[in-house]
Amino acid sequence: MKTRAAIAYKAGTPLAVETVDLEGPRAGEVLVEIKATGVCHTDAFTLSGDDPEGAFPAILGHEGAGIVLEVGAGVTSLKPGDHVIPLYTPECRECDYCLHPKTNLCQSIRETQGQGLMPDGTSRFSIDGTPILHYMGCSTFSNHTVLPEIALAKVRKDADFEKICYIGCGVTTGVGAVVFDAKVEPGSNVVVFGLGGIGLNVIQGARMVGANKIIGIDINNDREAMGRHFGMTDFLNPKDCDVMEAIMDLTNGGADYSFECIGNVTTMRQALECCHKGWGESIIIGVAGAGQEISTRPFQLVTGRVWRGSAFGGARGRTDVPRIVDWYMDGKIDIDSLITHTMPLDDINKAFDLMHKGESIRSVIKY
Amino acid sequence: MKTRAAIAYKAGTPLAVETVDLEGPRAGEVLVEIKATGVCHTDAFTLSGDDPEGAFPAILGHEGAGIVLEVGAGVTSLKPGDHVIPLYTPECRECDYCLHPKTNLCQSIRETQGQGLMPDGTSRFSIDGTPILHYMGCSTFSNHTVLPEIALAKVRKDADFEKICYIGCGVTTGVGAVVFDAKVEPGSNVVVFGLGGIGLNVIQGARMVGANKIIGIDINNDREAMGRHFGMTDFLNPKDCDVMEAIMDLTNGGADYSFECIGNVTTMRQALECCHKGWGESIIIGVAGAGQEISTRPFQLVTGRVWRGSAFGGARGRTDVPRIVDWYMDGKIDIDSLITHTMPLDDINKAFDLMHKGESIRSVIKY
Repeated sequence: MKTRAAIAYKAGTPLAVETVDLEGPRAGEVLVEIKATGVCHTDAFTLSGDDPEGAFPAILGHEGAGIVLEVGAGVTSLKPGDHVIPLYTPECRECDYCLHPKTNLCQSIRETQGQGLMPDGTSRFSIDGTPILHYMGCSTFSNHTVLPEIALAKVRKDADFEKICYIGCGVTTGVGAVVFDAKVEPGSNVVVFGLGGIGLNVIQGARMVGANKIIGIDINNDREAMGRHFGMTDFLNPKDCDVMEAIMDLTNGGADYSFECIGNVTTMRQALECCHKGWGESIIIGVAGAGQEISTRPFQLVTGRVWRGSAFGGARGRTDVPRIVDWYMDGKIDIDSLITHTMPLDDINKAFDLMHKGESIRSVIKY
Repeated sequence: MKTRAAIAYKAGTPLAVETVDLEGPRAGEVLVEIKATGVCHTDAFTLSGDDPEGAFPAILGHEGAGIVLEVGAGVTSLKPGDHVIPLYTPECRECDYCLHPKTNLCQSIRETQGQGLMPDGTSRFSIDGTPILHYMGCSTFSNHTVLPEIALAKVRKDADFEKICYIGCGVTTGVGAVVFDAKVEPGSNVVVFGLGGIGLNVIQGARMVGANKIIGIDINNDREAMGRHFGMTDFLNPKDCDVMEAIMDLTNGGADYSFECIGNVTTMRQALECCHKGWGESIIIGVAGAGQEISTRPFQLVTGRVWRGSAFGGARGRTDVPRIVDWYMDGKIDIDSLITHTMPLDDINKAFDLMHKGESIRSVIKY
């Protein structure tokens, strides 16, 4: 079939919206009509050329929602008409990782996914016979795409695509880190470094589970109002105060949980060291630049702090993403306020511009 | 009363065995006749002068066992004749730390303990009226000592003092790190860096809880036989192989749990990075030199590894130390083989010599 997609021909150039050829689903695969997709920093990171795994030409986008149009041979869990959210972290429920209680990092198709290919080692996208690569197993910057069955979460039909697409990455990454990885308990004091989309979702995850103090940190004072809307109780700007001292005062000795949502190794260290002696846990969500390292004195750990990380919020996609859609529909989390811009695919490069200027929390492309 | 004790008059000099004056127990305190004490690396560390908290003159020793002779006003949990193990990490059961489910680091008397004083800010030891400091709240290098009630674990009477004294530090630190902090599950693959007393106790803790592979690492081949005796299944010498590669091969991708029992920041990094993607946890037990730092790429944590530390094995002394004595008496753990030397107090400087030469696992002073 033919579909419309935004092509990344090479690093550092704008996307080109064109008609591409899309082959139908093979065995175990599903054809999805993407109805909406968010534009995420990770897409921008790959497009910039800084992503060592980035390959071109490719169809980016990994934060979508849509409708199943057709299923390949052997597909049993989905049928045409089902509403789905693509999963860049799939859930095969069969690999060593899926069967381990402590991780969500399904590895069953990781190798081909990292190469921009379907599990059989080929691409479904092409232009004039020249293959175009998939991206993160999703390629939601195409109106239609093909995904493995294990990379699709089936969700309820009464939820708006242009809102729940954000659950495909940012919402789950932030809320999930609180709920599935840190397992924040009611009454906990939580510190959040960086009030972008991830940080705001951490904040509302912490509010949902009954955190006590939720302290947000950002160098941009404009983020304070948004943070408070999502449940932040205290705002700290490192330009105006000693954040470590302020956290110790506000929490009576340190955070029960801290989350680094920036990708800066200096704030990663602060996030660990602002944790309470004896039990504070720090969760790294942000992605640091290639080759950068985190450091601390081992005494910080020996005296009871724990350093961990989170990817896709620790969520098992097919199991947990439908639950997060329920939380949204039940009003437990707010997605609408985070989606600051909505636009058609033809305007996708504007979404990247808004992101780079810091003017958007999340832009959503509506097909 | 008068008692015999080994005095550390100043850093870097041998201990002097002398008669000292010991005041009786004040309110909340207990007079204990120490029957045996281990000589630990931590005593040597303080004696060397490298311990920034070290203060002199002091009576060192923190790994003892003995009998209650007299209790001060208000002491309700102990009576004369009780057998006890002194606790350098006390358990008051009242402070924020004792009441928190994730830590054993009771802070109720930490400040005075760090100053070498009893909780009321004074010392019970003196010579000719000049106060001698306590050490780690224990001072087991004295035949008699006074401790707070909250710093004594009451243990069964049929266990040999000269064996169970080792539970006062080394055994609990190693076995406890496995059982209470890491919570190693049956079938886990475990890697242990450093096969000294702590490492060997980690090994037998891992064996006790049903670990699968227990891989020991040391640059000294002489440690292999001892390691295997305690349950080590595989031995690696970094001089003979690439330990990271060997661990990946032996564990099919990485350790479920690793323990650093050396205090070297380079092996701390290796211990983290040899852990399995998705779920491997590394526990730092060794104490690094002042100012030294650990480093890694944050990607190690974001992909599921966890970095934590352990102090006194995560044990709550009054609760868990008696249980470990039971494990010893039930044959679940072996202490006898670890005690390579026994000697009288007058020979205590020989115990330090044996330790520095690497010729002992544990020397015990028998009063």
